[in-house]
Amino acid sequence: MHTQDKEKRKRIIVVGAGFGGLKAVQKLKKKQVDITLIDKTNHHLFQPLLYQVATAALAPGDIAIPARTIFKNDRNVNVLMGEVTRVDKERKVVRMDKDQELSFDYLVLAPGARHSYFGNDHWEEKAPGLKTLSDALDIRENILLSFEKAEREHNEQRRKKYETFVVVGGGPTGVEVAGAIAEIASRAVREDYRNADPGLLEIHLVEGQSRILGMYDETLGERAVRDLERMGVTVWLNSMVTGIDDDGVAVRVAGEDKLRNIATDNVIWAAGNAASPLLRTLDVPLEKDGRLHVDQDLSVPGHPSVFVIGDAAMHIDSEGRETPGIAPGAIQQGEHAARNIISDLKGGSREPFSYFDKGSMATIGRAKAVAEIGGQKFSGFFAWILWSLVHVFFLIGFRNRFRVMGEWVWYYITFRGGSQLITRKKIGESELRGSSKAQSSSREEKQAEELHLN
Amino acid sequence: MHTQDKEKRKRIIVVGAGFGGLKAVQKLKKKQVDITLIDKTNHHLFQPLLYQVATAALAPGDIAIPARTIFKNDRNVNVLMGEVTRVDKERKVVRMDKDQELSFDYLVLAPGARHSYFGNDHWEEKAPGLKTLSDALDIRENILLSFEKAEREHNEQRRKKYETFVVVGGGPTGVEVAGAIAEIASRAVREDYRNADPGLLEIHLVEGQSRILGMYDETLGERAVRDLERMGVTVWLNSMVTGIDDDGVAVRVAGEDKLRNIATDNVIWAAGNAASPLLRTLDVPLEKDGRLHVDQDLSVPGHPSVFVIGDAAMHIDSEGRETPGIAPGAIQQGEHAARNIISDLKGGSREPFSYFDKGSMATIGRAKAVAEIGGQKFSGFFAWILWSLVHVFFLIGFRNRFRVMGEWVWYYITFRGGSQLITRKKIGESELRGSSKAQSSSREEKQAEELHLN
Repeated sequence: MHTQDKEKRKRIIVVGAGFGGLKAVQKLKKKQVDITLIDKTNHHLFQPLLYQVATAALAPGDIAIPARTIFKNDRNVNVLMGEVTRVDKERKVVRMDKDQELSFDYLVLAPGARHSYFGNDHWEEKAPGLKTLSDALDIRENILLSFEKAEREHNEQRRKKYETFVVVGGGPTGVEVAGAIAEIASRAVREDYRNADPGLLEIHLVEGQSRILGMYDETLGERAVRDLERMGVTVWLNSMVTGIDDDGVAVRVAGEDKLRNIATDNVIWAAGNAASPLLRTLDVPLEKDGRLHVDQDLSVPGHPSVFVIGDAAMHIDSEGRETPGIAPGAIQQGEHAARNIISDLKGGSREPFSYFDKGSMATIGRAKAVAEIGGQKFSGFFAWILWSLVHVFFLIGFRNRFRVMGEWVWYYITFRGGSQLITRKKIGESELRGSSKAQSSSREEKQAEELHLN
Repeated sequence: MHTQDKEKRKRIIVVGAGFGGLKAVQKLKKKQVDITLIDKTNHHLFQPLLYQVATAALAPGDIAIPARTIFKNDRNVNVLMGEVTRVDKERKVVRMDKDQELSFDYLVLAPGARHSYFGNDHWEEKAPGLKTLSDALDIRENILLSFEKAEREHNEQRRKKYETFVVVGGGPTGVEVAGAIAEIASRAVREDYRNADPGLLEIHLVEGQSRILGMYDETLGERAVRDLERMGVTVWLNSMVTGIDDDGVAVRVAGEDKLRNIATDNVIWAAGNAASPLLRTLDVPLEKDGRLHVDQDLSVPGHPSVFVIGDAAMHIDSEGRETPGIAPGAIQQGEHAARNIISDLKGGSREPFSYFDKGSMATIGRAKAVAEIGGQKFSGFFAWILWSLVHVFFLIGFRNRFRVMGEWVWYYITFRGGSQLITRKKIGESELRGSSKAQSSSREEKQAEELHLN
């Protein structure tokens, strides 16, 4: 290739190495363009399985792969780790962190979403959401530490608090997390611990709407509730969380005057999404949830060189159908945005995007799932096998696929997650007693708390 | 078993789930005793392979297993996660964290050692040591982040700093870490990065003595130096680190008047050990490095119910030979302390401990190692195969063994570590520029730093 050719090559920046961003790069890299992929982390994450890392069934390396590794052999793809903090759509530059600027001819923004606490951002510390590997490891260690604390705790009320889990939000993530916690908790408490008490175990799933898995057919949501309840999960419908603090969660249940207080040390937030704040720097109107309502071709209205895709975008096609915020939606949009850029380069015209629904599925527990494919509804063991195959099949990289399958077979046979290591957190005394407890205790209490009681 | 029998059962507390503590529990659990194993973490760690986690070749789950899982089926073994903060040898109780007390009839202390900075504890922040999984993950992310920073950096001097690594201490850990960094660094910089420059890569190994691997025969140390230098590591003998800060490391090289300053963002400390501070609460005289010089039977002089084993103990047998601070030493001591306790219970007499030297080995890189077994010296590929087999064979748990072998075969074929994920740290702007740099830069500089230069 001649230097002159290189100079004429278009510069394309893709922000975000999720499903949408990755697909866009994979499509564009075959053309004579220079691509820079920027992500806050150094990896692509297979987010649909993130809850399995959070519940200690899989290790981080099973569901993530460095973006650099994916594009190792593509010399026209630059991968940078960094946070894009603003977009200047007029000057056609993005700013990375504080002082690096990169110019582009085309920009594909796929920055995704974070969880939204509906104005209660202070809840985040007590009720982490589940979007990144770091989130998942934090949640995992919270859960494992809770069991360790319960094992050391001789006061039944405090022990019960450590054995109580609250999941907020009855979408696929909430359902999957609640089901997985029910499985590991009952098994762990029965088998691995001596002092923790299976009778104290409680798992709550709190949903504001009248049903869970709202995007599926109603019968599947009902089936999921039955499955969860059989696994020991209490499902609260039409119920709103009104407070989260060190003592636990306050829930307003429809038809009840008094708030219910659930004493817990373990809250997981799976209730709301807000698009990345990066979109605000585009200086165009956004939806209430922070998403950008894109044009039919997925570009920013009035700015055809900037595309927004995935969870950050709201796209409604010519028939009024909205692309759902799931992996296939992002993948299809990434491919479509790339196709429209390539069409531009060739002097062709852009095509409007339309989402092709291949179906959707959620798992509830070991050998339990629900799926809806082409209007067909599935549930139970068959849906779970289908879910497993689809998820392993779409895992990027042969090696991960092989490992995850191995882990699952192992998990299915032994019921034992391979990743119950605590590497980030320590048991601290203040944590162990709860912040509201006095630190001193009488000699009698201390003696009663000695662990060699028999 | 009758309640009366249970009441008479002796209570044994083991502190530390390393090689020594674990072996003691495994031996004692077959007897009619109640055992409590307490560790700060929730896992046993196969420490000889920890450097492979630090250098992204293995995942944490490959070399660690929850202590609770190991003793899952032993109803007379209680596993607690917590930090023993003091021992009251007169009252025969240990205190866990702040306010829990546990009483014992016998106590086996196997708390291990931390790294020692020889009075310069403030170096720790810039030069982490390698003892725990958390240490290893921190070091790994530092290394990976350095490459990411180098990739983004267009000032050559700063880029060189990110591509320079200093390992302090030429014992087995230091040699293994330096060799592994040389391998991943040269490979990563050549293949995965576009802007990072192989010509700038420097790895330094600094050793205060006149040779590395001091516990081995001199010829093996010389062989290791040759192997390391061939891999691109600069070995500094008779050289002392006199300062570590944000700019790098100051080294006093024997025979040179001026200090050498190595600009680096990556320092790994493998130079010194200090026994756990827990021993100080025993209120008996300790060695300068914090170890307790135990009696021939491994107990604390004058306190036969308290044993100290492993890295925290100094034991010199009747022939004047000291037990080395390596896994086989700790394992043999753990077994011996357990045997002496069992002998006490039967009314027998205690035996003095004597270390049986099965040999020792260290790896230098892919297919390079040194070993000394029964006076025989090995090096090169054969020593590496030996090293691999021994290390995999001693990994606790069939599953880990299987996985680690798989990882190694994969690593050997592809040269590609499976664990290059950054989950804890972010690239921050202040880090990226170094703390001493002004944040503002001229427009020209900014333009020069734009990443699309060609």
